[in-house]
Amino acid sequence: MTEQHESQPHEHVEDSLKQVMDLITRHKVVEALVHKQDMPRHDLVESLVHKQNLAELSKKLDGLHPADVAYILEALPIEDRLLVWDRVKAERDGEILLEVSDAVRESLIETMDNRELVAAAASLDTDEIADLAPDLPKDVVQELMKSLDEAKRAQVQSSLSYDDDSVGALMDYDFVTIRADVTLEVALRYLRFLGDLPSHTDKLFVVERDGHLVGVLPLKRLLIHDPEVYVAAVMSDEPVLFHPSDDASDATQAFERYDLISAPVVDARGRLTGRLTVDVVMDYIRDETEADMLQAAGLREEEDLFTTVWKAARNRWMWLAINLCTALIASRVVGAFEGSIEKLAALAALMPIVAGMGGNSGNQTSTLVVRGIALGLINKDNARRLLGKEIGIALLNGVVWGGVMGVVAFLLYKNAALGAVMAASMLLNLLVAALAGYFAPALIDRLGRDPAFGSAVLTTFITDSMGFFIFLGMATVFLL
Amino acid sequence: MTEQHESQPHEHVEDSLKQVMDLITRHKVVEALVHKQDMPRHDLVESLVHKQNLAELSKKLDGLHPADVAYILEALPIEDRLLVWDRVKAERDGEILLEVSDAVRESLIETMDNRELVAAAASLDTDEIADLAPDLPKDVVQELMKSLDEAKRAQVQSSLSYDDDSVGALMDYDFVTIRADVTLEVALRYLRFLGDLPSHTDKLFVVERDGHLVGVLPLKRLLIHDPEVYVAAVMSDEPVLFHPSDDASDATQAFERYDLISAPVVDARGRLTGRLTVDVVMDYIRDETEADMLQAAGLREEEDLFTTVWKAARNRWMWLAINLCTALIASRVVGAFEGSIEKLAALAALMPIVAGMGGNSGNQTSTLVVRGIALGLINKDNARRLLGKEIGIALLNGVVWGGVMGVVAFLLYKNAALGAVMAASMLLNLLVAALAGYFAPALIDRLGRDPAFGSAVLTTFITDSMGFFIFLGMATVFLL
Repeated sequence: MTEQHESQPHEHVEDSLKQVMDLITRHKVVEALVHKQDMPRHDLVESLVHKQNLAELSKKLDGLHPADVAYILEALPIEDRLLVWDRVKAERDGEILLEVSDAVRESLIETMDNRELVAAAASLDTDEIADLAPDLPKDVVQELMKSLDEAKRAQVQSSLSYDDDSVGALMDYDFVTIRADVTLEVALRYLRFLGDLPSHTDKLFVVERDGHLVGVLPLKRLLIHDPEVYVAAVMSDEPVLFHPSDDASDATQAFERYDLISAPVVDARGRLTGRLTVDVVMDYIRDETEADMLQAAGLREEEDLFTTVWKAARNRWMWLAINLCTALIASRVVGAFEGSIEKLAALAALMPIVAGMGGNSGNQTSTLVVRGIALGLINKDNARRLLGKEIGIALLNGVVWGGVMGVVAFLLYKNAALGAVMAASMLLNLLVAALAGYFAPALIDRLGRDPAFGSAVLTTFITDSMGFFIFLGMATVFLL
Repeated sequence: MTEQHESQPHEHVEDSLKQVMDLITRHKVVEALVHKQDMPRHDLVESLVHKQNLAELSKKLDGLHPADVAYILEALPIEDRLLVWDRVKAERDGEILLEVSDAVRESLIETMDNRELVAAAASLDTDEIADLAPDLPKDVVQELMKSLDEAKRAQVQSSLSYDDDSVGALMDYDFVTIRADVTLEVALRYLRFLGDLPSHTDKLFVVERDGHLVGVLPLKRLLIHDPEVYVAAVMSDEPVLFHPSDDASDATQAFERYDLISAPVVDARGRLTGRLTVDVVMDYIRDETEADMLQAAGLREEEDLFTTVWKAARNRWMWLAINLCTALIASRVVGAFEGSIEKLAALAALMPIVAGMGGNSGNQTSTLVVRGIALGLINKDNARRLLGKEIGIALLNGVVWGGVMGVVAFLLYKNAALGAVMAASMLLNLLVAALAGYFAPALIDRLGRDPAFGSAVLTTFITDSMGFFIFLGMATVFLL
C-alpha cells in the first residue's frame, strides 16, 4: 500500500457507492433520451451532459481507495460494473483486481484483452502477481513473466510453487535487512538513505552476509535506544518466525496469539526468504471464515451476487445433489414402514419432529467439536470426557424434550402408547445425535479432510435416517 | 503486550499442551500412589517427587506467552484446569484472564477470592480492566475503582459507558502525542526520553495544546525524513479516524480495507480520546465470526468444552425450544392430511424430500443475502435484480431436481401421477425457498436485528411447512 492511501479521508464507502449509482443512473437517463428521441448521437448538448457524467464518475473513482472501488464493483450488477470498470484508470487496474472477490475478478478479467492484463499485473509486487496469476489466461502469464527481471521472475515462480494454504503463498518480499555489527545511528542513516519503507514495517530483519537470519530489530527499539549502541545489543534474537511450508492457519493463529504486525519467513537452513504481514493474515482469516460460512450452506465457492443463473446453479448443485441422495436414503427408511403408516397416519405427522430435533441437537454437538478440532483443543486425553459431557446433555435433553413431546403427542392423539413411543424415540435419537455430532467430525478429521465441511451433512443424515427408523420401528413393534 | 513476548521462541503450542498434560498425569499418579499405599502424606520421597512435578509445571507455565497459557487452560477439563491455574504466578493472572474465552474465564474467576481478583485486575491497562469488569463480582469492581487514580478511573468508566459493539469499547488509551511545530529531531529525542512505546505504535498522534487532533506522523516518515524538518511538514493531516460511538464492525471493515495498524479515535469536537489497534480489531473479528458460527448452530454463547451438563444444556435449550415449535407447526400441517396419507403411505416417505430440498436451497439463498447485507452490498437499487437471479436459479433447480425426483418417484411406486405431483411440488417449493431465503433476512434486517441469526430457522420453517402443504395438498387434489 502506498503512503497516500494511509491518509484516505474517512468518507463512508456506502456514500461513495450511492454517488456512483446516481451518476450511472444519470448517465443512463441521458443515453435513453438520446435513443428515444432518435436524435443524432452527437447532438451537442446531450453529448456534453453525457461526457460530464462520465467525467464526474472518473473523478469520483480516482479519489477512492482501491478497496473502496472494489467494494463498489461488487455491489453493482454486471453491466453497471463494467461501465465503472471502464472509467477506472488503467494504472489502477492491478491493485483493484487484487481487492475484489474471486468471482467478481473473473467477471472483470473476461472483459480485458491480453495487453491490458499484462499492463495491469506488471504494476504489482511479485507476491501480488503470484496472487493474481491463477486467474489470468496462460498466455498473459507467460508474457508477464518475460517482462520481469530474473530476480522478480524467481520470486513469482517461488510464490506460485507453494500450496495455497501455506505461509509461502502469503508472504511478500518487501523487507529491510540490516547487519548486527552496525550501530543504531548507522541503521537510522540507512533508512533515511532508502527514503521509503515497505508498508507494515514494524521491525528490520537482522541477517548475516549469507542471508542467515540472526534476529529482528523492532523499530520501537531503534527509536528508543541510544544511537551509539550496536544492533546486536538491542535486537531480539529469538523472534517468532515461519517457514514457507508452514500451514497458513497455524501462522494466522500465531499472529493472533502474539499480536504480530510482521514476521520473517526463513528457509530450512535459516536464510531469510520472505515476510508475513498482519494485513495479509487478516485477509486470509476473513477469506477462510467466509469460505467456511458459504460452504456450510452448500455454496461451493464465493458467488458473485449478480452472476448468471447458470454459473450460480453450478456453484450450488453439488450440495443439492448430495442432500438429495441422503434425503432419498432417509425416504427409503420411511418407505420400509409404509404399512405401519397406513394403519396409523399420525406417525407421518410426528416423525419429522423426532428427526428434526435430532438434527438440531446433533449439529450443536458437531459445531463445538469442529471448533475444538480447528483450535487444537481436542486430543485423545480429553476426548472421552467431552464425549461423556455430550452424552450427558443428550440424556438430559432426551428426558426434557422427549417428555414434552410425549405429552404433546398424547394430548393430540389421545393415545398414551403413542406418547410413550414418541418420548422414548426422542430420547434415543438425541443419544444418536450426540454420537453422530461427536464422531462425524472426528471421522472426517481422521480421513485428513477439514471437518468444517461435511460434518453437518453427515450428522443430519444419521439423525434423519435413525430418527425415522427408531420412531417408526418402535411404533411398529409396540403400537400395531 | 510487553517486549519480552514479542521474542517468544516459536515452539508449537500443541507441544506445550502435551508437556503440561504429561506433568499433570505424573502428578496425579504420585498422588494416587500416596493415597493407595495409605502412606503418610508427608513421606519424604513421594513428597519430593510430588513437589518436583508441580515445580516443573510452574516453570513450564512461566515460560509461556499468556495466550498460550490461555489455550492450555481451555483444552483442560475443569479439575486439571484449576490445578494449572493454581500454578500460574499471581501477577500473570490478569493478562491470562483477558486471553481466555468468556466461558473459561467464568470458571477461573469462580475459584478466586476478591483479594486475588483485585490484584489480578489492578495489573492491567484501563481499557483491559474495562474488558474484564463485566465478568467480575460487583464488590471487586468497586474496590478496584477505588484503587485507581482519578484519570484512570475516568478512563475505565468511559470505556464501560460505551456499547459493546462500538469503537469506544475497543479503544485503548496508550498513544504518544506530539506537537506539529517541533522538528523530527525533537520528536526522536522525545521518544528516546520516553524510553518505551506502546505496542502497535506505527504512528504518533499530532495534537494541539487543547487535545485537538491535527494529524498523524507515521513512524516511517519520522525515520526516513531529514531530522531538521518540522512535524507539520511531513505529517498526514487527513488520517483515517474514528469516533467512540462508531459501529465496531464498520471500524473493522475500515482496518481491513485500508490495512491499518493503529488509528486515532476523536470525540465530537475533534479531540483525541483514544486509539484503535489492529490486534484488538482482529480479536473482535474472530469473536464475531465465532459467535456467528456458534449461534447459527444454536449455541447461545461460546461454550466451555468441559463445562457442566447443566450449563451446556441451558446454553442450547432456547434453540431446541424454537425448533420444537416450528417442527410442531410443520407437523400439524402434515396432520391435516392424515386422511390422504392413510390412503397413500408413499406420501409420507416422499414428503421429507420436498421439504428438505427446499430447506437446503433456501439456505443457500439466505446465506448469500445475509452476507450481502452484512457487507452493505445490497441496496434498493440492486435488490430486485438479485431477487430475479434467485428466482431464475430456483426455476432451473426446480426443473432439474424436480424432474429427477419425479422420475425416481415414478420408478419407485410405478405411479406416473405421483411422479408428476412430486416434480411439480419440488418446483413450487424451490420457488418458495428462493422467496423465503431472500425475504427472511431482509425482514429480520428491517426489524433492526442481525439477519445472521434467525434467517436459517425462519427459512427452514417456511420451506418445511410449505413443502409439506404443497406436496400433500397437490397429492390430495390430484391423486386421491
